[in-house]
Amino acid sequence: MRYMLRVAYDGTEYCGWQVQPGQRTVEGTLKSALDKLMGKDVPMIGASRTDAGVHAEGNVAVFDCDTTIPADKIKYALNNMLPEDVVVVESKQVDDNFHPRHCDCRKTYQYRILNTQMPDPNRRRNTYFYRWKLDMEAMRAAADCIVGTHDFACFMAAGSQVTDTVRTVYSLELAKIDDVITMTIQGNGFLYNMVRIIAGTLIQVGRGQLEPGQIADIIKKGERKNAGPTAPAKGLTLKVIDYE
Amino acid sequence: MRYMLRVAYDGTEYCGWQVQPGQRTVEGTLKSALDKLMGKDVPMIGASRTDAGVHAEGNVAVFDCDTTIPADKIKYALNNMLPEDVVVVESKQVDDNFHPRHCDCRKTYQYRILNTQMPDPNRRRNTYFYRWKLDMEAMRAAADCIVGTHDFACFMAAGSQVTDTVRTVYSLELAKIDDVITMTIQGNGFLYNMVRIIAGTLIQVGRGQLEPGQIADIIKKGERKNAGPTAPAKGLTLKVIDYE
Repeated sequence: MRYMLRVAYDGTEYCGWQVQPGQRTVEGTLKSALDKLMGKDVPMIGASRTDAGVHAEGNVAVFDCDTTIPADKIKYALNNMLPEDVVVVESKQVDDNFHPRHCDCRKTYQYRILNTQMPDPNRRRNTYFYRWKLDMEAMRAAADCIVGTHDFACFMAAGSQVTDTVRTVYSLELAKIDDVITMTIQGNGFLYNMVRIIAGTLIQVGRGQLEPGQIADIIKKGERKNAGPTAPAKGLTLKVIDYE
Repeated sequence: MRYMLRVAYDGTEYCGWQVQPGQRTVEGTLKSALDKLMGKDVPMIGASRTDAGVHAEGNVAVFDCDTTIPADKIKYALNNMLPEDVVVVESKQVDDNFHPRHCDCRKTYQYRILNTQMPDPNRRRNTYFYRWKLDMEAMRAAADCIVGTHDFACFMAAGSQVTDTVRTVYSLELAKIDDVITMTIQGNGFLYNMVRIIAGTLIQVGRGQLEPGQIADIIKKGERKNAGPTAPAKGLTLKVIDYE
C-alpha cells in the first residue's frame, strides 16, 4: 500500500529536505522515524527538496509499506518519534501510481518580510527583516509581469542542471498585514531558488532600485545577473502542494 | 545620566530575565554587552523578572552611565554585540529619579494559544498548542470576573514570598484570529506566575471543567489549589510597560 504524508517543519536547524551524508535533514529525520515505526528500511519519495532554512506547512512525502496501522493514525505514531520542529500533519493512503513529483500539481510558497524599524527576535526564524520602506504598488505591478507561462531562466540560481526552464506561475499576490509583507506565489513548479530570487527582485522594485517596467525585459533576456539578489531562506515557507 | 532600554527577546533559550550564576539569562546577556560597550561594570535594573521561556516585546531596563554615545544610538551599539534572540528596540535618556520598578506603571502581557488539530512547528516557540475546542464566550465571562482590584492570592504560585497580594487588573480581553486565541491582560503588576495561572484557569473554563460563575468564589477564597494549572511559559509574552 502506498501512503502519503503531509509534513510541516521549521527548517532553521536543518540542512534542507534532502538526505545528505553526515547532515541533519528533514527527509533523514522523517525517514529515521518511519524506519523505526515500520521496523525496516522504507524508501521514501519527497515532493519538494526545500533548501536549508526553508520552512514548510505542507511538504509531501510518499512511501510503500504493509502495515496494520490505520492510515490516519500513522501521523500520531510518527510524531511521537519526531523532534518538535518536524510534524506530520496528515497521513493517508493514496493510489499505488501516485508519485509526488511526477503528478501534475500546484505548489504554493509564501515569502514573508518583516518591514519594521527594529528586528523582532520572536519572528526572526520565519521572516526576513527588511528595514527600509517598500512601495507595495510598484511591487504589485512587477508581480503582475511574472504571472503566466514564461522561460524563467533569469530567476534560476547559477549552477542548476535543469535545462527546461519554462514554468507557469498561476498567481503572485502581495499583501501587507500590520508590519509583515507576504508574497504568495502559486505555480506548477519552481526552478532552483526561483521563489527567493523573485522575492529579492521584488524587494529591489519596492526600494526603487528596479522599475516594474524592467521585469518583462529581465525575463525575456533570461540572464540571472539582471534579476535581484536571492532573498534569505528563512523568509520562505512551502505552504501547500495541491495535486489535481 | 540615566538611560532606559526597551528590550525584546525570544525567551526559549534563556533561564528567564534575572542573573543567576552559571545560567544563561536575558539580563546577564544584556549586561555583558552593556559592560563591554561602556568598558566597565554598569549596574542595571530590570522592570520585570520574566520566567524561563517567557518572551518580551518591551521589557524595560535602566542604567546610569556617562557616555558620549547619543542616547538613541545606544540600541544599535548594543544590538551589534547581542545574540539575535535579544534586541534592544529603544534606548533613551530618562529622569535621574526614574526607577523601573518603583514608578507607577501598567504592564501588558499576552498569552497565545494555538487552537488547532495538529501542532505547528513554526509557531511552537511562542504559542501553547491546545488541541481541544474552547468556548470563547465562557472564557470571556470568566475573564470579566478577574478585571478589577482584588486579592489575587489564588493566582499566585506556591512558594512566593510576596505578602501583599492585592493587584489591579485594568483589562483582560480574549480574541480569536484564525486559529490563535490571544488573552491580553493589563494590570499595575502581577504576582509570581499570575498571568500563566489565569491562562490555565481560563482554559479550564473554555473546556467546561470550571464554570465562569466559580471564578469570583475562587478569587474570594484565595487558595491556589482552587484555580487552574499554570499554563506553559512559551505562550506568554510581555508586550509593553507603560509608565505614567
